[in-house]
Formats: sequence, structure tokens, C-alpha cells
Amino acid sequence: MSSPQPTFSAAGRLTDLICGTAEMNAVWSARETVQSMLDVEAALARASALHGVIPADAVGAIVAACNADLIDAGALMSGAASGGNLAIPLVKQLTAAVKIKDADAAKFVHWGATSQDIIDTGTVLQLRSTFDLLEAGLDELSEALALQAGTYRTTPMIGRTWLQQALPITLGLKFAQWLDALTRHRERLAHCCGRVLVLQFGGAAGTLASLRDKAPDVAQALADDLKLQLPALPWHTQRDRIAEAAACFGMLIGTLGKIARDISLHMQTEVGELAEPAAAGKGGSSTMPHKRNPVGCAAVLSAAMRAPNLVATVFSGMVQEHERALGGWQAEWEALPDLARLSGGALAQITAIVSNMDVNTERLDANLDLTHGLILGEAVMLALGDRIGRLDAHSLVEHASKEAVAKGTTLYDVLSNDPRVTQHVSSVQLQALLDPANYAGQATAFVDAVLKRHRSNPFGSFS
Amino acid sequence: MSSPQPTFSAAGRLTDLICGTAEMNAVWSARETVQSMLDVEAALARASALHGVIPADAVGAIVAACNADLIDAGALMSGAASGGNLAIPLVKQLTAAVKIKDADAAKFVHWGATSQDIIDTGTVLQLRSTFDLLEAGLDELSEALALQAGTYRTTPMIGRTWLQQALPITLGLKFAQWLDALTRHRERLAHCCGRVLVLQFGGAAGTLASLRDKAPDVAQALADDLKLQLPALPWHTQRDRIAEAAACFGMLIGTLGKIARDISLHMQTEVGELAEPAAAGKGGSSTMPHKRNPVGCAAVLSAAMRAPNLVATVFSGMVQEHERALGGWQAEWEALPDLARLSGGALAQITAIVSNMDVNTERLDANLDLTHGLILGEAVMLALGDRIGRLDAHSLVEHASKEAVAKGTTLYDVLSNDPRVTQHVSSVQLQALLDPANYAGQATAFVDAVLKRHRSNPFGSFS
Amino acid sequence: MSSPQPTFSAAGRLTDLICGTAEMNAVWSARETVQSMLDVEAALARASALHGVIPADAVGAIVAACNADLIDAGALMSGAASGGNLAIPLVKQLTAAVKIKDADAAKFVHWGATSQDIIDTGTVLQLRSTFDLLEAGLDELSEALALQAGTYRTTPMIGRTWLQQALPITLGLKFAQWLDALTRHRERLAHCCGRVLVLQFGGAAGTLASLRDKAPDVAQALADDLKLQLPALPWHTQRDRIAEAAACFGMLIGTLGKIARDISLHMQTEVGELAEPAAAGKGGSSTMPHKRNPVGCAAVLSAAMRAPNLVATVFSGMVQEHERALGGWQAEWEALPDLARLSGGALAQITAIVSNMDVNTERLDANLDLTHGLILGEAVMLALGDRIGRLDAHSLVEHASKEAVAKGTTLYDVLSNDPRVTQHVSSVQLQALLDPANYAGQATAFVDAVLKRHRSNPFGSFS
Amino acid sequence: MSSPQPTFSAAGRLTDLICGTAEMNAVWSARETVQSMLDVEAALARASALHGVIPADAVGAIVAACNADLIDAGALMSGAASGGNLAIPLVKQLTAAVKIKDADAAKFVHWGATSQDIIDTGTVLQLRSTFDLLEAGLDELSEALALQAGTYRTTPMIGRTWLQQALPITLGLKFAQWLDALTRHRERLAHCCGRVLVLQFGGAAGTLASLRDKAPDVAQALADDLKLQLPALPWHTQRDRIAEAAACFGMLIGTLGKIARDISLHMQTEVGELAEPAAAGKGGSSTMPHKRNPVGCAAVLSAAMRAPNLVATVFSGMVQEHERALGGWQAEWEALPDLARLSGGALAQITAIVSNMDVNTERLDANLDLTHGLILGEAVMLALGDRIGRLDAHSLVEHASKEAVAKGTTLYDVLSNDPRVTQHVSSVQLQALLDPANYAGQATAFVDAVLKRHRSNPFGSFS
Repeated sequence: MSSPQPTFSAAGRLTDLICGTAEMNAVWSARETVQSMLDVEAALARASALHGVIPADAVGAIVAACNADLIDAGALMSGAASGGNLAIPLVKQLTAAVKIKDADAAKFVHWGATSQDIIDTGTVLQLRSTFDLLEAGLDELSEALALQAGTYRTTPMIGRTWLQQALPITLGLKFAQWLDALTRHRERLAHCCGRVLVLQFGGAAGTLASLRDKAPDVAQALADDLKLQLPALPWHTQRDRIAEAAACFGMLIGTLGKIARDISLHMQTEVGELAEPAAAGKGGSSTMPHKRNPVGCAAVLSAAMRAPNLVATVFSGMVQEHERALGGWQAEWEALPDLARLSGGALAQITAIVSNMDVNTERLDANLDLTHGLILGEAVMLALGDRIGRLDAHSLVEHASKEAVAKGTTLYDVLSNDPRVTQHVSSVQLQALLDPANYAGQATAFVDAVLKRHRSNPFGSFS
Repeated sequence: MSSPQPTFSAAGRLTDLICGTAEMNAVWSARETVQSMLDVEAALARASALHGVIPADAVGAIVAACNADLIDAGALMSGAASGGNLAIPLVKQLTAAVKIKDADAAKFVHWGATSQDIIDTGTVLQLRSTFDLLEAGLDELSEALALQAGTYRTTPMIGRTWLQQALPITLGLKFAQWLDALTRHRERLAHCCGRVLVLQFGGAAGTLASLRDKAPDVAQALADDLKLQLPALPWHTQRDRIAEAAACFGMLIGTLGKIARDISLHMQTEVGELAEPAAAGKGGSSTMPHKRNPVGCAAVLSAAMRAPNLVATVFSGMVQEHERALGGWQAEWEALPDLARLSGGALAQITAIVSNMDVNTERLDANLDLTHGLILGEAVMLALGDRIGRLDAHSLVEHASKEAVAKGTTLYDVLSNDPRVTQHVSSVQLQALLDPANYAGQATAFVDAVLKRHRSNPFGSFS
Repeated sequence: MSSPQPTFSAAGRLTDLICGTAEMNAVWSARETVQSMLDVEAALARASALHGVIPADAVGAIVAACNADLIDAGALMSGAASGGNLAIPLVKQLTAAVKIKDADAAKFVHWGATSQDIIDTGTVLQLRSTFDLLEAGLDELSEALALQAGTYRTTPMIGRTWLQQALPITLGLKFAQWLDALTRHRERLAHCCGRVLVLQFGGAAGTLASLRDKAPDVAQALADDLKLQLPALPWHTQRDRIAEAAACFGMLIGTLGKIARDISLHMQTEVGELAEPAAAGKGGSSTMPHKRNPVGCAAVLSAAMRAPNLVATVFSGMVQEHERALGGWQAEWEALPDLARLSGGALAQITAIVSNMDVNTERLDANLDLTHGLILGEAVMLALGDRIGRLDAHSLVEHASKEAVAKGTTLYDVLSNDPRVTQHVSSVQLQALLDPANYAGQATAFVDAVLKRHRSNPFGSFS
Repeated sequence: MSSPQPTFSAAGRLTDLICGTAEMNAVWSARETVQSMLDVEAALARASALHGVIPADAVGAIVAACNADLIDAGALMSGAASGGNLAIPLVKQLTAAVKIKDADAAKFVHWGATSQDIIDTGTVLQLRSTFDLLEAGLDELSEALALQAGTYRTTPMIGRTWLQQALPITLGLKFAQWLDALTRHRERLAHCCGRVLVLQFGGAAGTLASLRDKAPDVAQALADDLKLQLPALPWHTQRDRIAEAAACFGMLIGTLGKIARDISLHMQTEVGELAEPAAAGKGGSSTMPHKRNPVGCAAVLSAAMRAPNLVATVFSGMVQEHERALGGWQAEWEALPDLARLSGGALAQITAIVSNMDVNTERLDANLDLTHGLILGEAVMLALGDRIGRLDAHSLVEHASKEAVAKGTTLYDVLSNDPRVTQHVSSVQLQALLDPANYAGQATAFVDAVLKRHRSNPFGSFS
């Protein structure tokens, strides 16, 4: 018999892969959520034993039982429903598992901790993995963007404002803009890490009272064991750290959404300048060979619609009651993982698209020519202005533009037949003025500035 | 060997039961999502054959294969990632499955439909089940509230504004207020059903072009087969129907959150008037027997923090592009099910709490007495005003209140020693005026009005 | 001396006109907000006198003072800051104003009411005006859309999915889709009115205790005076009514945002099919005559980004405490007016655009021809399939499409040179198959169905 | 005649003072918004003249006209409605004003800039003022909290989890928790300033093309003139900077909301531990002298409900189109100022409350005694455990607690009559164990750690 196919009971949310990666989904999977909490319980046993709070020989049995594979997920979920969180039933199962091996050790499970210590510190561990994945992902995307920005540094493209053709830019400038924003996101995530990767450990009311005079030592040892910073004090109902992580993920998704919006607009049948890389089964249609669906962009745009509201949920949850919240804390439990997953997924989608982007330079050129030169009226006006004065130049070009539109001809044709122009500007000069490549202003200088900053990479690694 | 315990790969979101019910979670489970889509495919085959669009003998094989148990969930998820939605890989698997049995029939799978037809109509079928569950749930909760409102119709309770004691109400009035709001939610859901339980069927661009002149007949037959209304035209990128369902769920959760907020405040150690029913493992603490955690309320409050932002996501998604959206449609896929699940869960939590609510009438009375009569100053003032004029009465009671506070005595003591009072009001009358039960205004009349409206139940069943 | 120009102190929010109308802004202006509250105070005086609760001769002075022009706005704002709401300082000013004229009457100002009664009922009066404006606005837009849908009932346009050209539709279908959604919004608003246009009147704790046995009569008289329904009981902390109004506004804005998104995409330089009507100073550029900025669409899209989150604020606010909220009620005070203003503004913007839309049929045709026939491959395939079998037809057209792309020629050229085609289909027939007008499916039938429903207008007026 | 009272036309939003300060409202007033933009225009004229782009003698007239008092606000608003933003009509008015004085100079107004350059840089200038006000506000609140934390460093208070009494903490710890969070907000705002206080200057398509080779010099001079950093390149449609500012404001409001939630709960009639300082007309009631409404807390809680959704609006707006957005940018125009105003207002409200907080130590003590010792069961259990073993101690205290509840007596009474206790623990020792002051764990150590960190103030000033 072959091994069975994955069943629906084995599927989490069917759409988690549409904007998600296997790696990031794994970090926030049910199993890893539980394992992270168990890692905290194991570290707590070690730290407590180190300072004589629990017997040294209890540690082995406890640590051995801190294995998610030994946990009954169904019982955990039912227990969470009655207890109000995952830690209560988890500690119950953990204690029972330890008891089978070592009844004495079982008495020392979870010693001195409260449910929220375990859940929050577990979340911080998952956040650390998330930051690591995002750092690697940002590095890869930044590198890809830097490469593309360099490649298309001087390639003319029409700049569009209000979804209308405006003035030329370069395709490299577009890539550089995106890269510049990502550099800031990297900096923000690094700053955030410094604040968020800290231990949560306060006991029932945040005073560590049950650990009496051993509290400071155990807390420090626990932080050291988990390689987290020890904060000045527990933060059970001060959620700015979690809110900041959520905001950082949300802002990153926002920038990725902007990139997706741009690419999907460039991919329109009527524009056709850029395209997601073709892949088997991805966005193609056998009966409509002209169609190249921006499947990756849609996934990222969907993430960018969800993320702001997930952030709002975490922010709303900051208004917490006294020493343990009634709703605000619990509201984080789906919102924060969703944000992490969407960050990872959106980053991967955009990286895949940018790294192998199809660039159609013919369409870039054709679109630059769509207005028959009108987009370069300003260039001509400035050049003429040097000779005949700015006001006359403005008036001349404005009329020429209208004439070109009215006659359905090009701006070049109108201007090259106007002696007020030709007496100052030769035909070759006029053609040069009407070449988009010559009117991209600081585009390449901006690209160079961004690439220089990118190469200096001032942020090092996050955690 | 015993059967294995549930594993983590089998767990969806570990916290889905904290504010969820097995029934509602089942409606929106991965399996049921797929089965709903397959139900649409099966109905499409029948409807198409009925009007000769596909051969009658193709129907059997297609319908037989429309079974979620035959679907490979893992392949579905991977396919969704490349195709951008669940329908593309599902139709692929369905076609392959039909082909094995009947190669000719396989050609007629999904005939004339587009992915969104299948996904949206599948969602509508799930919404119908959701409305049915909510209707039953609202009936049960309304009945429980009506019972409690009747039982405590005249039981005095302090009314609180700004979290400060104000004037007496009755506990029955509180229940009646909640019931009154639920009656409106029931009406809203009924109205919503009339608009949302409709077929989605438009084909690739919403014109049903590939069905040529058979289109109207097939569409009507498909709607009839699924027992849905046939709308005037497809609504692929007009999402007001879905938005309305989301809003209805969100508003219901808002009202349930208000109930949870109230109950949790009444449960405070310092208030102690109401309590969630005690249940094994639910909110108790062996070491702190005085503690009764409002576990159910916290779950509902958490839902009430998430719901508004899930609604916002669906509303944001309404801004869709042309004939198929890029992000806005996809953003509904998690938000709408989450709202349905949270609605069902919050309804169940509040129903469980209300049905077996612990009411502590001693604490109700003690709290009414906490200000030593100050909360009834207005009652005395009005009665005295009839005799000595409103202005003098106001001044007299105001001074008496301040004196009672200053001396740490009761308002009765001060007033019963003031001849300006005693010459008009006997001791017995004064005691009656200071009895909260005598100053609940229209509380019982309001209760009766709500109960009368509840009993008339003008809305019938939803779908 | 000429009259002074408007100063900044006179300006509310400078951008309120970008997506706002003078009429709707007036309904929610500072002055009208205060006048609505004063209207409630005046009606309360009349209703109370009618039933002998206050002296009949107090009414005249009170009613005369209920005039916003007599109110000191600055003092009102300062008073609101200390009192926490507008009613407290307003009643103070009102009482002082009455006192100057009639010291006795001043004692009966605001008799029996609480601040929230006045503020909420004032808001309901503003909502009634809002519904009236929206009803008129929806009528006008619906009429405009019906006219356009009729005019362009059969005008071919390319349908686009995923921002890619897919199959033909008609421009009339696009208008009909929008109209169909608006018809539902009209129905929703009518349903909402029935629930929301009710009196708020409960006194300090919602029991009307201070009105003793006159309470029911005064409440009914007050409702009658204001032409509002009298609800079963007060609803100070049951905010589903307000939430529903917010949701209706938000959903309407969502649909208008979808229309704006579509129009702005159609206006792109590279698409050029539709355009906002040209207006002096609106979106044009003297130096870039090719540019027609979608200024109105941008305003509506901006509204559609803000609205979901304003709705979320109102929904969040539903979780209120006991008999008077601490934050949730107050959170409505800017969010609800903003939603009303944006609804009115977005409706006006889209109406202005739709009523005088520039339709460029040349570009509609040119874009239909952009893929040189590929968008009609399905039409040919179906026709051929009738003769040579569906499978062969599919294969033939698929290959022909790829060949046309590869050779840079039209699908017609390839097919008309293929004897497998020409033996079944004449050149004239082939041209007809490749005419987009012949493959719009049920487009015109759908238009007709929507127009029929529109003309039947089953909803009457709102309030 | 006396000067007229403020009229309604002069009032912005009537409720802007409920959670706002005059200073912060001024920064974001209509006048200041316009003046900031004019400041940018003036600086642009200076910078352009410095590098010979415009004539030096044009500067005087332009700079002189850059005065908001000369602007017609009504015309500005109408012009914004047609142009789609404020800069278009502002430049028009500015040019006209310059022209009256110096027709030549008028030609050089706004030279090389695009509307968004002026609006965004104006906003950045307002953000700088906002950061400055928040910095000062945070300093003041932090100082107040540090003072209170020191004063009440060891004052016992019951810690509450799930709104239930749990274990003792100290009031100083509560203040320290709030202070600790504010320290992080100060750090975040400092980091944010470094990224957001930059010039926006790119011209029509972000390339500064019209400035030709003078572009880098003018950009640098403009940044210098305005004392802003010059970024690597313009960021018209890369909105992460603005999003970060919004998020920082939102997070700060979240923490302030948490403080308000706590204080309002402590103020409940049944709790009575803390109170907002009494102020004339603020939250008192002449007829209900026991009532002290948390008016300031309600204002902050309202802000904390609105802020997350305002942040979500700005985040949603990040998904912008090409080189100029269609809706996303415009959506910032109300959301960002609202967030700034609410930040300033909430900070001021909490500062006023904290600085003069009423602390009722009698009620603190009474509430600690409410469970008659049950909250200290753990303390006894730990002490007894040292003598009789943890398991026996647990069982003994658990039974004693239940007995105390059942008999309505104190835990001390039960334990002091149990020889299993008295043989190990003296009456004095037992009393000490049941003294909340002796079981606050690390509370004072945590206070000290936070105060030490506060005093070191590692962040300097923001901008």
C-alpha cells in the first residue's frame, strides 16, 4: 500500500500557501508554537535547578518531556477552550508526561511561572526565527533589486502620475525606489529586534514573588539559556513590543504591496512593459495565450489589504486590564502569526518576481512614444527658453502640443516645421530633446546613490 | 496498537476553539470549503445536462467524483499557490478523477464556469449553513435572555455610568437590553440572507458567453438545484453582498462583546454580582479559591477586538478591478470565515454563560448600599420637591448628601434628623424613598415591552 | 470696505471638499450638530409641558433659546473638554440664556434627560438628513447609470480579469453592474432607516425614573414631536443601530470606490476608453495636454481607503460598559460624521463623472483589437466544435493562437488560411465570429434585467 | 460693542479639545498646514536663487507672499476640490499675490517643484513640531510617573489578573510599568525622527529633470534651509516613513489607553483606589457627590479606539500607483493629523491625571483585605512548604482557604487554629506571612530598575 495522500484534517488553512512560505509557515505552525512553549519550560527547569530552586535531578525528566511530538493536540485545543489559553492544558499534559517517568520531577514543572510567561516567551522565540527569515529574505530581495537597478539604470520608461503618462524616468530608478524603502525596513527591523527579543517572566502577578530571593538569578539564567535579553521588568500588559513587531511586518507588507501594485499595472495587456516570470501552471491560460495573470502580485496585494487591519487588531489589544488582559492579549494570537506569515510570503513572492522579471523593452519604448512626443514638451520648452525666453517657449510648446494632438501628428513634426524653433534648434538637437533617455533628470544619479547605500549595508544581522 | 492521538499536522489553528464551536468550525473547515465547491460542480453538471449543454450520461461520473474525500489536500494547496485560487487545482483534480472512470465525461467538468463562480457559490452555500447556525444560536440565546429577564424583572441592581454608580436599574432590564439588540440582529440577518443567498455564475468575463443561448436556462437550473436565488446578473467584482454578511457578523459580535464586557465587570472581585457558571477546569484556581476567571468573556472580548478589523478587510476589498479583482477578492478568503467562526463561537460562549449565570443577589444588594443612600438622593429630592418646591428640595438633598459623606453616615440618618424633611415625610416614607426597588423607573415596563416583542418573533427563519 | 475673505479660523478641515458636498458637510457641521441637539431640547420642553411635567409657560423661553446662533462655540468646546461631551456645556449655556429671559423657565431646561439622550437623538436627526441626501443622491446616480447602461447597452468593450484582457463584454453591462449594486445599497439604507431613526430617551440610567409615571407619555410625545419612532427601550450602550448606519455608509463607499477604480483604470493613457468629464481646473495640465488626471476618482478612492477603518472604529466602540460607555461612544463622534460626509462626497463625485462621462469608442474598438483576435479564440472554438468536435476545435484554435502571436499576425489571418477551418466556416462567418459584438453573451440581457429592476424601484423613500 | 463670541463657522471639530491640546491642534490647524507649505515655497525660492536657478531679486517678493494670512481659505478649499490637492490652488494664489508686487518674480514661484513636494515637506515640518511636542510631553509624563513610582514604591496594592484579585503588587510597580513602556516609546520616536525628518523634492516625476544639472545643489540647499536631511532620492510613492510616524503615534496612544483603562477601573465606585484629580466642572455631579467620572480616561480610551484604525488607513495607503498615488496618498491627509492630535491630547490627559492623581490608601488596604487573606495563601504555602514539604503545604492551604470561604472567616483564623500550622509558624510569623507588603516579590526592585533607566535618559532630544 502506498502512503496515504494528505487529508483535509491535515490541512490548516487551504490558502496559507497563496501568500506564504513553507519556512515561515513552519515557524508559526501549531507544532512549532507548542514546541516554543516547551522550549521555555525546559529552559525554566534548567535555570531553576541552576540556582537551587528545583532539584537538579528533576531537570532531566522535564527536559525530556518537552517535546511537541508527545503532546495530544486535540486535548490541547479542548483544554485551551476551557482554560482560556494554551499554556494551562500544555502544562497539564507536560506534568502528566513527566510524572510517568519521574513522579517527583513532575512537581517542579512550570515552577514559578505563569501561563503568560510561557506563551509570550514562546512567541518571542518564534519572532526571533521570523526576524531571521525576514533578514535573509530582505537580503535576497535587496540583492535582486540592486542587480536589476544596475541593469536597467539608464533604460528609459515613462513615469506615470495619477495613472497618466507624465515624464520619463528610468526602469532602474523604479527598482532603486523599491530598494531604498527596503533598506529602511531592514533598519526598522533591526531596531525592533533590540526591543522585542526579551524574556517574559513575572509569575502570577508579575512580581516573581513565589521565587522569593532567587527570582533575579533565575530570571537572568532563563534569559541566558534562551539567548534573550532580560528586560528591566515583566511586560505582561505592556504590549508595545508586540505592537512594534506587528507594525514592522505591516509596513514591510505595505511596501511589498506597492511593488505588486506597480508590477501588476505594468503587466496590463495595454501596457505590457514588465511581467512576472512565466512558470508552469502559474497565471497562464491555454485558450488565451495573450494572458499572463499577475498571480504573485495578486497574492501580495491581498496580503497588503489584510495586514493593516491585522496591525490594527494588535494595536487595539494594547488597551489591557491591570496585570492580565481580558481580550487584548488573546487578540494577538492569530493576528501576529498571520502578519509574520504574510510578511514571509509577500517577501518570497516579490523576490521570485523581481529576480526573474520579464522586461519588455519594446513595449517600454512604444509606450514612451504613445503621446508622440508630448511627454517631452517640457524638455523642449526648457531648451528653447534658454534662447527665446521662458514665457515665449512655454507658449510656443503649449500651442505646438495642442496642434500635434489636433492633427494627430508628432510634436517633432510640428516643432520641426516652426521657424521660431528651427532658427535656434537644429533637427538633430530637436530629436535629442525629444529622446526620453535625455530627460530622465537625476534618475541615474539616484540609482547610484541607492546602490552605494545598499552596498555599505550598515545594519549587520538582526538578532 | 491503539489509534494514534491527534497530531499537530492535524490541528488547524490551536486557538480556534477558544472562541469557536465545532459546528461552525466544521462549516468553514478545509474539507467543507472544498466540498461546497464540489457541490457546485456537481449541480452544474446536472443543470447543464438538463438543458442539453453536456451529455446526460456524463453527469453520473462527474457527480460521483465530487467528493472531498477523493481530493489530495496537499496538491490542492500547492496548486492554489501557483494558480492563485483553489478552484484551478480543484478542477484539475476533479477532471483527473472523472477521467479515470469516464474519459468522455471528463471533458465536461466545470463546463461554462469560471473559478470565481465555483468559489463564490461555494462560499454562499457555507454562508447559508452559517446563517442557519446563527439563527438557531440566536433563538437559544434570546430564549435564555428572555427567561433571565423575566426572572430578574424587578431585582434591583445599581446602574453604572462612566463606571461609577449612578441610579438603580433592575437586573432584568440589563438582560432585556441585550435581548432587544439581539432581536435587531436577527432582523438584520434575515434581511441580509435575502440579498446574499444568490448564485454566482457568469463564466470567464461574467457574460456566460460560452453557454450561448442556453445560458439563462442553465443559470436558472443551477440556482434551482442549489436552492439559491438567481440574481439579475453575476456579481464577480460587486462585493456588497459579501460585505453585508461580514458586517452583520461583525455587528453581532459587537453586541456579544458588550455583554461580555458587562459580565466581566460584574464578576470583578470587588463587584461580585454576576459570574460565569462554574465548570470543571474553567477559570478556577486551586490555590486561589476566590478567583473565578471570566474565561468565556475574555474569549468573546477577544473576538470583539478582531471582528471590526476583519470587517474592515472585507470592506477594503470591495474596491476591485474590472471583471476580476487583484487582491480584494482574495482578501475575503480568511476574513469572512474568521468572522463566521467568531460569530458562532461568541454566540455559544454568551449563551452558555447567560443560560447558567450565577447571580449573587447579596452582592447586588450590598453594592446598592455601598454609597449609603446617595444613589437615591434624586428620588428623595423629587418627592420632597412636590412638597417644598424643587429648588429647595435640590439644595436640601445636596447638602444632606455632602454631610453624609463627610460624617461617614447614611443619607437616611442625615435626612431623618432634619425637621425640614420629617415634617413632610414620615420615617417609613423616607425608607421607601431610599429603597432602590422603588426608584427603577420604567425598568420593568421596558422589560415587558422587550419580552412582548421577543415573543411575537416576527422574523421567521432565515433561509 | 469689502467683506473679508474667509479666514483659516473659519476653515474646518481644508480637505473636506475634496470628497464632500456642501449639503452633506452642512448636515454634519459644528453648527448643525449643536442645532440638532437644541432641537431635541426644544422638543423635550414641548413634550414635557404637554403632559404637565414642566409648566406650559416655560416652553416659550426655552424654545426661543434653542438657537445655535446664540451659542458661544469656544466656550462649548472648552466645556466639552472638561465635561467629556458637548451636552453638558450646551445645557449650561442654554440654561443661562433662558434664565436671562425667564428665570423660572430656566429651571426646566433639559428636564428628565441625560446628556446622551440629547447627543444621540441629535445624531439621529442628522442621520435622517443624511439618509435623505443619500436617497436623493442614489436616485440621481442610478438614473444616470440607467441612462448610460441604455446608451451603451450593446457597445463592445474588452472585459478584463486579473488586469488582463479576457473576453468581450459591453460598456452597458459595466454600467448595469454598478447600478445593480446601488439598487441593493438603496434597499439596505431603507432597511437601516427603519431601525435607526428612533428616539434616544432614558434619563440618567436609562429608566426615565425622574419622570415617574409621566415617563411613557413624555417619551411618546417627544418621539412624535421629532417625528421619530419610539423604541421599546433606550439604547445608550447598545450601539448596533449606529454601527449599522456606519456599515451602510461604508458599503456604499466601497461600491463607489470600485467604480472609481474602474474608471481610473479606463482613463490610463495606455487605455483611454473612458474619462472623467473635462472641467476648468480639474485634472488638466497646460504643459501636458495628453494628461487627464482622474481627480474625482482619486477622491473617491481615498474615501474608500478611509471608510473601512472608520467603520471598524464604530464597530470597536460597540463594546461598551454598563449603562454609559467609556470611550466606545465617544469614538463615534468623529467616525460617523466622517462616514456620512465621505458617502455624500463620493456619491456626488461619481454622479458627476458618470453623468458626463467621456466615452472614447475608438479606443474601445482599438483595445478590442489589441490582441489581433486572440480574445475571440473561444468564440471560434465553440463554433468549430459544433462541426469538427470540441476537442479538435480546441487544439486547432490553440495552435492558431500561438501561431498568430509568433508571426505577429491576426488570428483571422491564420484561421482563414487553414483549410480545416475554411471547409466549415466561410470568410464572412469567420469575421462574424471574430467580431466582439457577437460574443458578449448575456451582456445585453443582463443590462435589460437590471434596467427593469431599476425602473420598478421597489423601495420608496427612506424616512 | 464687545468683540463677538467665537462662531460656529470658526469652530473646526467641536470635539477636538476632548482629546487634544491647543498646542498640538495648532500644529495641525488649517492655518499651520498652509503656512508649512508656504515655508517650503519660500525656502525653495531661496535655494533656487542661491544656485542661480531663479533670479536673486525674485526671492524677496516670493518670500514676502509666503504668509498664510494672505491666503483666501474658501478659495483654497474650492480649488483643492477641483485640483485634487491643496498645493495647486495654493500655488495659484501665491503666484497671484507675488504678481501684484513683482510680475517677474511671479514666474519663478514653485520653480521645479511638484505639488507633492510642497505638501509632503510641509507635512514633515509639521511632524517635526509634533515630535518636539511629544518629546516634551513624554519628558513631563515620565517625570511625573517616576515621582509617583518613587512615592508609592512599596505601597501594597492588589494585583489583578482577568479582572480578579490575584496577588499583591505595589502601586509603585504599576507606575513603573507605565514608565518603562514610555521609555521605549521615546526611543522609538527618536529612531523614527531619524528616518522621517527628510526633504521631499523630486519634481513632476521624481527626477528633478526640469532643474537639469542644478538639481543636486538646489535639493541640498533646500534641505539645509529647512534643516531637514536630504534623502538618497525622492519618496513620493514610498510611504514607509509616514507609516512609521503613524505607527509610533498609534503605539504611544495604545500605551496611554492602557493607563487610562487601568485608572478608570481603579476609579470604580466599588474599587475606589485611584481617581483623576478633581477639577471644577470635570466629572463631578452636584446631585451625586459620590460620583467622580473618569472624564480624562474616557477621552484617552476613545483615542485608543480610533488610533489603530487611523494607523490602518495610513498603512492601507502605502499601496500606491507608480510615481503618484490615486487615493493612498490622499488618505493620509486626515488620518496622520488626527493621530498627531490624539497623541498630543492623550499624552496631556494622562499627564494631568498622573501628576495629581488622588490615591486612596484606605481603599487600597481595604481591597487587599477583601478576600480575608486568600490572596496570600501562596505566601503561607511556600513558607510552610519549607517545613512540611510543598505538597502537604499545598493541600493544607487549599483546604484552609476553602474552609475560610465556607465559614465566612479569615484565612488567618483558620490557619491559626490548625496545629499543623502553629507547630511550625508562630502567630506573629503567620501575621507577617499574611501581610501583603511582605509578598510583593521583586516589585520594589523592578521599580528601582525602571527609575535607574529613566534617570540615565539615553535618548537625547529627537530632532
